[in-house]
Amino acid sequence: MENKITQIFKIKYPIIQAGMVWCSGWKLAAAVSNHGGLGLIGAGSMYPEVLKEHINKIKKATDKPWGVNIPLLYPEVDKLIDLVIEEGVKIVFTSAGSPAKFTAKLKAHGITVAHVIANSRFAKKCEDSGVDVLVAEGFEAGGHNSREETTTMVLIPQIHRSSNLPLIAAGGIGTGSAMAAAMALGADGVQIGSRFAASEESSAHPAFLRKVVDATEGGTILTLKKLAPVRLIHNKFSDTVEELQSKGASVEELRELLGKGRAKKGMFLGDIDEGELEIGQVSALIDKVQPASQIMNDILTEYRHTINNFSGQAFQF
Amino acid sequence: MENKITQIFKIKYPIIQAGMVWCSGWKLAAAVSNHGGLGLIGAGSMYPEVLKEHINKIKKATDKPWGVNIPLLYPEVDKLIDLVIEEGVKIVFTSAGSPAKFTAKLKAHGITVAHVIANSRFAKKCEDSGVDVLVAEGFEAGGHNSREETTTMVLIPQIHRSSNLPLIAAGGIGTGSAMAAAMALGADGVQIGSRFAASEESSAHPAFLRKVVDATEGGTILTLKKLAPVRLIHNKFSDTVEELQSKGASVEELRELLGKGRAKKGMFLGDIDEGELEIGQVSALIDKVQPASQIMNDILTEYRHTINNFSGQAFQF
Repeated sequence: MENKITQIFKIKYPIIQAGMVWCSGWKLAAAVSNHGGLGLIGAGSMYPEVLKEHINKIKKATDKPWGVNIPLLYPEVDKLIDLVIEEGVKIVFTSAGSPAKFTAKLKAHGITVAHVIANSRFAKKCEDSGVDVLVAEGFEAGGHNSREETTTMVLIPQIHRSSNLPLIAAGGIGTGSAMAAAMALGADGVQIGSRFAASEESSAHPAFLRKVVDATEGGTILTLKKLAPVRLIHNKFSDTVEELQSKGASVEELRELLGKGRAKKGMFLGDIDEGELEIGQVSALIDKVQPASQIMNDILTEYRHTINNFSGQAFQF
Repeated sequence: MENKITQIFKIKYPIIQAGMVWCSGWKLAAAVSNHGGLGLIGAGSMYPEVLKEHINKIKKATDKPWGVNIPLLYPEVDKLIDLVIEEGVKIVFTSAGSPAKFTAKLKAHGITVAHVIANSRFAKKCEDSGVDVLVAEGFEAGGHNSREETTTMVLIPQIHRSSNLPLIAAGGIGTGSAMAAAMALGADGVQIGSRFAASEESSAHPAFLRKVVDATEGGTILTLKKLAPVRLIHNKFSDTVEELQSKGASVEELRELLGKGRAKKGMFLGDIDEGELEIGQVSALIDKVQPASQIMNDILTEYRHTINNFSGQAFQF
């Protein structure tokens, strides 16, 4: 299954495991890379010395390609950028910021750069900045998201139409049939977060994972839109936010309510009432915690099944 | 291209033209039915005597199957139900209400009933009520929508998993590649609104259609969530709503602001500042007004192209 994405990253299948705060350390990333996908260490929740430790561990755990996701809103982002360069990381996904900031520097050190976007204006910015691969993320995705609320179904064709860069679809994708749907829309690969967050190799707290597995339709909400929109599981904290918002709360009031370390509290320490529980809408379709290898197998089997069904239809038509 | 949807409606292609207020009268519905899809008269914006006139006209304009969409929040909905029965209408799509209300009555008169839902709890209600076909509509769809905000990418697999009824996907679908994506997700057919709203046979005002064609990503918004969520194009009216909401407006204040006849004002009379301009996110991908026949041809050609591409992949994998 060769295409633009497998070729540029030198991987077997065009499946990227999303870099996720508090979920994707070296263990998950190595497991995905060892099974033919591209594993990403999520640096957003790591101090530079912690990231360094994860990089050292993944180097021992796999000889396959892997990468690091760096959210550009990270307070000391320069330190992370310098670190991945020093450590000889070959693939970096940047997100939550401008691709103009660090792409040239990373590329100058031979690093392949992917950048996460939510509209085609940013696709253009990525091209101008020398980004190698686009990740287009829809409204249904977990964690930080765009104010424009464009869903994967509409966003992928839009980006496909406006840019020739290799395109990875993200948001709402946790199965092989959704992978086939994304490819039909024009993607060359998929980035899967929530399903891998609920893996045995995930570093998230078991209480958070139980909430993910139990989540049903309408179980997540995109909230804090005035501040920085984030999709999370409905809980006591999100109810408090929604109530405050419906009374017309200011950005300052929301920032004060949010405080610091809410995601760590919920996802890493397991405070399911007061923490931020970041996950995508596709959590409604996830009903167990599995090994990453089994998740890869399931997705590939279902993808194969879906496209074989299509090929049966092709000539009846 | 035979499947559950083509068989139950006796149509050539599993493409349904959504019943839309102020857009889909007999002219558009007949054009779609004459080209192998299923055209629907949108009764939501019609007085009973107007609907009767449209039914009489479509009977003369096509000998192919067609139907009527009845939103159950319509003030005198009983009159519309009695009318479609008297007029011998064979296919009715109901929406915006409980399927338990009229399904048995319609079925007793030999009418095939489809019902529009946005979650699997309603899929179960539809089964219990004897509904024949489900239409699952995602967050990206235009007009009235669900508070749960589940997108088409996540909703379709969820409904497919929870019900065996024939399933039509709606929301974000305006092209053949999106049709293929919906089928990959488990749908048996697609309902297309926005693209047909922007057809030459649409009864909407040309000023509204210009706004649809000009709409770009992020050009629509799901608003009035406290009252009855509706997706429309950003304009002066939606800005006023958003401003009032961000100050913590009550349901009563929003109802007063909305008033009566906003959709007619915008979509039929062409007041693009003060009217409600209901359309889906997929308007970003629509860049011209075309004849319905051309829209059908384009969608089918692209669908065929997409699944043929897939069948080329099936054995490399």
